[in-house]
Amino acid sequence: MKYYFEKTLTTDFETAVAKTKEALKSEGFGVLSEIDIHEKLKEKLGVDFRRYKILGACNPAYAYKALQKEDKIGVMLPCNVIIQEITEGKIEVAAVDPVASMSAIENPGLRDIAGDIQKKLKNMISILQ
Amino acid sequence: MKYYFEKTLTTDFETAVAKTKEALKSEGFGVLSEIDIHEKLKEKLGVDFRRYKILGACNPAYAYKALQKEDKIGVMLPCNVIIQEITEGKIEVAAVDPVASMSAIENPGLRDIAGDIQKKLKNMISILQ
Repeated sequence: MKYYFEKTLTTDFETAVAKTKEALKSEGFGVLSEIDIHEKLKEKLGVDFRRYKILGACNPAYAYKALQKEDKIGVMLPCNVIIQEITEGKIEVAAVDPVASMSAIENPGLRDIAGDIQKKLKNMISILQ
Repeated sequence: MKYYFEKTLTTDFETAVAKTKEALKSEGFGVLSEIDIHEKLKEKLGVDFRRYKILGACNPAYAYKALQKEDKIGVMLPCNVIIQEITEGKIEVAAVDPVASMSAIENPGLRDIAGDIQKKLKNMISILQ
């Protein structure tokens, strides 16, 4: 099962991060967390991993609905979007497919919400360029 | 499929958060993100949701191994631990089961890593009191 939607952009890393944030905003998502994996792995393990960021994206109205239907859903929130440098000037953006990541949860009410968020994240990837 | 491990503590909310961070540390996890859902929902929607925090926990060595086996695994990292106030003085802590959340990903090498992290998160919950 594919668990993400992705697109490769021809640009530099920081521009790709900024474009992703804009596209998220236009689909109703705020960014609640931002983790720099490249920096963290450098700091903690001394390794030189490629540039890689994790943005935690959240649509507050949908998150609220999901929390009311499934009180432990916070273990899978926010929805992550990753940005990684494949080669210089080639940046891949990938968003989690919430229908796949939440597939272990048997709750039909939640499935509808995950389906709506799936559409918004798919759209966010499709408008990126 | 159950997708989390949980325990209810008899204490106040902030103490439960501090105890969870300590237990995570003793199992080799750092906290890379901390989201206050109560505050966010108040700010964005004006609703009065119970006290609820999401901690993003990461064991750098395992995260590095996982990223090498599955480059898009960042859409499911870090591993979340949630703390929510059930009633005053009753605080529930729940950690994601990474084997459940990553069940949609067909990658045997990743499954072993998820299994190791599952044990550590289970242990983290079991030592909480």
